[in-house]
Amino acid sequence: MARSPVKRYAIGVDFGTNSVRALVAEVSDGSEVAAHVYSYPSGQQGILLDPKDPNLARQNPADYIEGFVRSVRGAVRAAKKQPGFAVENVVGIGIDATGSTPLPVDHEGMPLSMHPDFKDDLAAYAWLWKDHTSYAEAAEITEKARQSGHGYLAKCGGTYSSEWFWSKILHCKRSSPKAFQAAFSWIEQSDFVPGYVTGNRSPETMPRCICAAGHKGMYHEAWGGLPSEAFWASVDPDLVAVRRRFAAPARAADQKAGGLTAELAKKVGLPPGTPVAVGTIDAHAGAVGAGIKPGTLVKIIGTSTCDMMVVPMDQELADVPGLCGIVPGSIVPGMYGLEAGQSAVGDIFNWFVSRLAPGGYTAKGDPHANLTRDAEPLRPGESGLLALDWNNGNRTVLVDPLLTGLLVGQTLHTTAPEIYRALVEATAFGALTIIRRLEEYGIMVKEVVNCGGIAEKNPFVMQLYADVCNRPMKISRSAQTCALGAAIFGAVVGGAYKSTEQAQRRMTGVSLTVYRPRRAAAEVYARLYELYRRLHDAFGVIGSEQSVDRVMKELIAIRDQVRRKG
Amino acid sequence: MARSPVKRYAIGVDFGTNSVRALVAEVSDGSEVAAHVYSYPSGQQGILLDPKDPNLARQNPADYIEGFVRSVRGAVRAAKKQPGFAVENVVGIGIDATGSTPLPVDHEGMPLSMHPDFKDDLAAYAWLWKDHTSYAEAAEITEKARQSGHGYLAKCGGTYSSEWFWSKILHCKRSSPKAFQAAFSWIEQSDFVPGYVTGNRSPETMPRCICAAGHKGMYHEAWGGLPSEAFWASVDPDLVAVRRRFAAPARAADQKAGGLTAELAKKVGLPPGTPVAVGTIDAHAGAVGAGIKPGTLVKIIGTSTCDMMVVPMDQELADVPGLCGIVPGSIVPGMYGLEAGQSAVGDIFNWFVSRLAPGGYTAKGDPHANLTRDAEPLRPGESGLLALDWNNGNRTVLVDPLLTGLLVGQTLHTTAPEIYRALVEATAFGALTIIRRLEEYGIMVKEVVNCGGIAEKNPFVMQLYADVCNRPMKISRSAQTCALGAAIFGAVVGGAYKSTEQAQRRMTGVSLTVYRPRRAAAEVYARLYELYRRLHDAFGVIGSEQSVDRVMKELIAIRDQVRRKG
Repeated sequence: MARSPVKRYAIGVDFGTNSVRALVAEVSDGSEVAAHVYSYPSGQQGILLDPKDPNLARQNPADYIEGFVRSVRGAVRAAKKQPGFAVENVVGIGIDATGSTPLPVDHEGMPLSMHPDFKDDLAAYAWLWKDHTSYAEAAEITEKARQSGHGYLAKCGGTYSSEWFWSKILHCKRSSPKAFQAAFSWIEQSDFVPGYVTGNRSPETMPRCICAAGHKGMYHEAWGGLPSEAFWASVDPDLVAVRRRFAAPARAADQKAGGLTAELAKKVGLPPGTPVAVGTIDAHAGAVGAGIKPGTLVKIIGTSTCDMMVVPMDQELADVPGLCGIVPGSIVPGMYGLEAGQSAVGDIFNWFVSRLAPGGYTAKGDPHANLTRDAEPLRPGESGLLALDWNNGNRTVLVDPLLTGLLVGQTLHTTAPEIYRALVEATAFGALTIIRRLEEYGIMVKEVVNCGGIAEKNPFVMQLYADVCNRPMKISRSAQTCALGAAIFGAVVGGAYKSTEQAQRRMTGVSLTVYRPRRAAAEVYARLYELYRRLHDAFGVIGSEQSVDRVMKELIAIRDQVRRKG
Repeated sequence: MARSPVKRYAIGVDFGTNSVRALVAEVSDGSEVAAHVYSYPSGQQGILLDPKDPNLARQNPADYIEGFVRSVRGAVRAAKKQPGFAVENVVGIGIDATGSTPLPVDHEGMPLSMHPDFKDDLAAYAWLWKDHTSYAEAAEITEKARQSGHGYLAKCGGTYSSEWFWSKILHCKRSSPKAFQAAFSWIEQSDFVPGYVTGNRSPETMPRCICAAGHKGMYHEAWGGLPSEAFWASVDPDLVAVRRRFAAPARAADQKAGGLTAELAKKVGLPPGTPVAVGTIDAHAGAVGAGIKPGTLVKIIGTSTCDMMVVPMDQELADVPGLCGIVPGSIVPGMYGLEAGQSAVGDIFNWFVSRLAPGGYTAKGDPHANLTRDAEPLRPGESGLLALDWNNGNRTVLVDPLLTGLLVGQTLHTTAPEIYRALVEATAFGALTIIRRLEEYGIMVKEVVNCGGIAEKNPFVMQLYADVCNRPMKISRSAQTCALGAAIFGAVVGGAYKSTEQAQRRMTGVSLTVYRPRRAAAEVYARLYELYRRLHDAFGVIGSEQSVDRVMKELIAIRDQVRRKG
């Protein structure tokens, strides 16, 4: 009997919002050998909050360091129990993190929050992606960028977000000048971790990942990297130094950030010098792990969504208004990476369950399952309800955090499951709006692959998405697409594959479960979507002349038609 | 010691939606001597429903007959236990009923539903005011009346309602031709009861009350009573006979319908021949019992509202678009009676409690009290929410049942008490819209007197109304204003007073409790009302060009300002 070839492994380390997960994957087919999750110990589920300001969300960078050690060590230990595994056969490590999550650092790249003087100053901690304190600065940067005439916003949808790098830094300067002055520079979480674990820690030299820089920092080769010093001087002269201390050019995740330091290697139980890839944003890693390729839209559906596509560099590509970003190499190196998203999806369902659903649905068992039981049998249109999915603002295509939820069509008979379903439908309409915007600009969506918690666990939502979008909804084979995507970059920098695409072909796939659109439902949803668009434009587009005068009547007409058929 | 003068009494019989109440009042000051309530035994809380059609609401006319006997007998028996009471000193009886609640009757004025052939046909029963099955016919009559050029709709707001007399009769013809053909005529509940108890039962001679005819039947002296036969022939030739069998002229409630028949007198324990007044609509009786006079708006606030004013006949009075009716003599004989209303107020709060409120608010105690506990301390504007009060359509000023509820401003932090408060605020904005419409047409509101369940029992709602409307809210002294108003008409037809106004001055009054507007709250509500009007016009007025593009942002701006002040 022939001796089986030596198995090789890659490790993906996925820094999420509440925890970090390390995954040991087999290089030959992406199968999962072992995993370990470490929940951040600080704050509330890893998030530092301020009771006086609901927009504030920070994290403790010390949790990132501890999280790397604990999760990787745990995964390696678990892998060692698998036959054939040996740490020498780990070819590389990839790392993804949330973004934009910038943190102020000192000359050595150490987080300001780890200095005793700043341990009580939340501004010195990491500004988590969902921190919305900086909306005024976002509007200001948008305005300045538009005036500048350099097209800095062309690749990020025309509007700079309160969730992004420069808004947060500028808000720090305004609201916490002491922390701002003490910071030598600002780096993204996805830069901090690879830099830290490879010992390449100086903000002026550590590799900056193109994902965060391109999608959140207005970095683009077309204008020579970050917007010019003159531009930043026009916004606030203090931002010029932040720009100067940014190590250009930004790099893609198929490049090596360095080798694991001896100190860290010992702690996690891997050989020192194990190759570590440049960081990437969690969603991008997820897209890679879900098998993103030209024509495939990958949707990561959880509390919010991230919707991604890639386009070959040789394809003509227009700037798409409202898209969060179009960045060369940001998702799959060598292709344009396109990112869109919905600011809240599962968060809206959770809000309804935690704040509104009656006791009959929440007292026993999973409230979502209870509501789904009564919401799923309802026919499209029969409730007469229509909602907008903007409880947390609108990321794509309006790029406006100052929008809110809306529900219309309530009668004295409206029930909780009807509203729950209307909220799910609203998020599906939001998803369709993104698909249509992509296709309007020539980026055809031939396939939709879904991943994330809701895609994995919620057939009701996924079937409804198929009906609303009138296209099949596929599900990624791996339940840990982000960590798998990071592992793929680990495999590439470790030399197991020549390119990300090659690694993806071997290491990713879709599940046998496919949700297919049902014609009758799709027909009603096409009519409801037209009404959704009226509300969308009337409430979401300043200066819009979209009328809504017939929306209530048309909802009633659809409702009555559907009920008569039943 | 001088012998005290003989006390005299009047009886008011108030036929409500679920029960009938008889009140024995002292004529000298309106004080309540005794009362008895009889709940209708048929259907669900007195209402016959059809599980297949949520718009359907009927009543059993046999309940009206039994209800008169039981309630009056009970009240008289209770009064007899009071010192000084004697049935010989009952000067008269007044009767009010819901409207428009038409019922088909035979030649003798007996309800068709009491014929064995029709006992299983809901069309042969009384069509309760809130039956909405006839919306298509209402639209058709509106259209025809507009085309006719006779101004038939000028006194009822420009739109004929699905709740009213002719819509229901036409729908009966279309949907239940057998019952329609078997009916000799149609009469209102407020005509049926006085006719029945005085033995004046023929549809062709029984006194028809001006309240129902004028506000719900397009009856007006300006065009010689009901719309012409030619008009009805243009709508449907079968309606001509219904018009012919209507005993004109319609009469006011200060006129005598007849004397109590010997049979009924014996059953209730009163002398035969006791004077009975022409009927009136419950809300109008309520206005009289609350002391309505020129400049005083009386609001009856319960599941829905009825808002009424009277204007002296010598005052110039324009037709007011959107008002349910302007009818000479309908409320206080000798004055124009004006009627407006909101289709749902308490019904909206009840809907929220029964369908949506979380278990924490509904498990123990009164859910309204529990929600109020958390909603009352909120500052105006701080939730960022705004709602429309149209869950049951809009009666005034849009006169459109095909409108629905709307809620905007939800975030991921929005709570149930915030929504509950937004719903209360929406009904207050609706109330203000009615006041403004009246004043725009020169009918100045110098005083607002509230009555009905919510006015009596809900200081939170009444204070909020004072703040939103920026005027004091007074409360009627009597808690049974409808029955007291009916008793006032009993006193007048019994000769105790020369006029309704004279009787009102002695028998009505307001409570010492007055809710006064608070300046800071009123200022914020003035801003929110401006946004409410934008939504109101954008969604409620066909062809409106009202934009809503800044509504969400302005709600956020108000919210943020209010929170900063806190």
